[in-house]
Amino acid sequence: MKIAVDAMGGDYAPEAIVKGVELARASFPDIEFLLFGDPEAIKKHLSDEKNISIIKTTELIDFHDEPLKAIRKKKDSSLVRAVKAVKDGEAQAVLSAGSTGALLAAGLFIVGRIKQIERPALMNTLPTADGLGFDMMDLGANAENKAEHLLDFAILGSYYAENVRNINKPRVALLSNGAEESKGSPLVKEAHELLSNEVSINFVGNIESRDILAGGMADVVVTDGFTGNAVLKAIEGTASVLMKQIKDGIMNGGLGTKIGGALVKKELSKLRNTMSTDSAGGAPIFGLKAPVVKTHGNSSPEAIFSTIKQIHKMLETDVVGKLVEHFEKNAEEKH
Amino acid sequence: MKIAVDAMGGDYAPEAIVKGVELARASFPDIEFLLFGDPEAIKKHLSDEKNISIIKTTELIDFHDEPLKAIRKKKDSSLVRAVKAVKDGEAQAVLSAGSTGALLAAGLFIVGRIKQIERPALMNTLPTADGLGFDMMDLGANAENKAEHLLDFAILGSYYAENVRNINKPRVALLSNGAEESKGSPLVKEAHELLSNEVSINFVGNIESRDILAGGMADVVVTDGFTGNAVLKAIEGTASVLMKQIKDGIMNGGLGTKIGGALVKKELSKLRNTMSTDSAGGAPIFGLKAPVVKTHGNSSPEAIFSTIKQIHKMLETDVVGKLVEHFEKNAEEKH
Repeated sequence: MKIAVDAMGGDYAPEAIVKGVELARASFPDIEFLLFGDPEAIKKHLSDEKNISIIKTTELIDFHDEPLKAIRKKKDSSLVRAVKAVKDGEAQAVLSAGSTGALLAAGLFIVGRIKQIERPALMNTLPTADGLGFDMMDLGANAENKAEHLLDFAILGSYYAENVRNINKPRVALLSNGAEESKGSPLVKEAHELLSNEVSINFVGNIESRDILAGGMADVVVTDGFTGNAVLKAIEGTASVLMKQIKDGIMNGGLGTKIGGALVKKELSKLRNTMSTDSAGGAPIFGLKAPVVKTHGNSSPEAIFSTIKQIHKMLETDVVGKLVEHFEKNAEEKH
Repeated sequence: MKIAVDAMGGDYAPEAIVKGVELARASFPDIEFLLFGDPEAIKKHLSDEKNISIIKTTELIDFHDEPLKAIRKKKDSSLVRAVKAVKDGEAQAVLSAGSTGALLAAGLFIVGRIKQIERPALMNTLPTADGLGFDMMDLGANAENKAEHLLDFAILGSYYAENVRNINKPRVALLSNGAEESKGSPLVKEAHELLSNEVSINFVGNIESRDILAGGMADVVVTDGFTGNAVLKAIEGTASVLMKQIKDGIMNGGLGTKIGGALVKKELSKLRNTMSTDSAGGAPIFGLKAPVVKTHGNSSPEAIFSTIKQIHKMLETDVVGKLVEHFEKNAEEKH
């Protein structure tokens, strides 16, 4: 299989990207990598070019660029060229740690949507206390969604959990302001009914954002892009503030506290690993005709490795192909 | 001033409520308390009845009751009677640790809205890392809001921060999926324009939920009730999972980790205090004709004390009266 990689996107590019690709190459000899970017800068971090092709690009899309404009103007950017390689059949999937907005725009306009799916969604596997995690979508690809989009997300998330995470009959829940069926905005109530009537998924009802991180209640959590984005960022913000407060408290404490801090350090970093999204891979823009996966801008080589592993599984199980088939069959039945 | 108290609502009622009232009585000799509930149960926890009147009620609304039905059927419940005391002029404000839904319904249908305010909101002062906190609303009084409601929330929150929290020209921010003006759902974009044009508030633009807890960016954060509820519960859920994980990690660690845990215990509990909402008081259902304040169902006597202190400040500054005046003036100008 061939994976196109935007080698220049992200805070630590190209070093972290290239090193992550090398880690993945050691584990997955069946992958050929197409690295898009500045050949000089890439080669500096590369031991050899086995299974790796470097394709020279001259432009860079950064976080200040307006996404739609950027993908139209910067046609020779590493991001646009990597995405275009998928469209042109040179690669089956693409990875970028660059601008989410630009990757989303490029995914939509260059790779294109699966027929029947009006609104692809940004999905991520979030960590839970029990270590099993759950897939949440939409995390912000759309600022507004209809109930039908949420139904699509439920099906997409369900296929992902089953194929990529090996979960049998994944439990799909709908984010709401109460567990009861009667709770929710008009959008959520409408989506609740659609999800209840969908035979292809295992819908378990509403879930509150208070309960998602503990684990054990849902494998897939569906919400609109605005709410999903707000909830994801609230989780990230809370975790970051708490960990910083603990660290500061220990650093500014007395000698006893400092010694205590040194002794619990291992536990704290273990916790950071459990609650980190790194090991689950990146965030697929799901609903496109091929895996287009965004990883955090600050991704480490290990996070890049995990994302490639995730893409490998997506290609190996052909989860996107199965989705295309599902929605085609669905459309035929409607006619 | 007279404050009506639902002595039977909440997980630790009446004990925690009565003890909280006693704490407040010692600090605020100008308050007369009307305690609604079972006199026998209340008296068990009361040292004497100075400044306290006990009013016997025979019914109890619990968390399983459907709110609207409950306030209609259980007219002799401690919650309904306490709220009715405000309507009848026997008290100027009411406090309950009981069902949020029932208090909301009772507030709306018994006390009533401030003229011009279509949708009162649930508001709370959330903690920030810098210790200053911010007021967020709507946290879930409404499952759906219009842009005009968000403008009302901005004005309400601004008056609260200025009067009750002594903040000069409080910075009001709008929760969105990006800081840029162009970001947001259609609702948020419309609200952004209304808030930008409102001269009575100090609008500072959009804020992401990732940034609210760090502090330093906004004194008031405005959002619709569905999103606010989801964000609040995500914050609570994340904090609770993380603290539990840390505790479990330390308890299940080796001897060194356990000793370390004992040494950092003080820091962790200090952190719990900084990040606790207890000291800021309860959550006013703001936009009603009088202070109707909900405290957490699991409120300790100290949390009840803080909520009474908060109500004392609300009455002392007449923040609700000022709001009535603001909206009356506003209505006159429109005619």
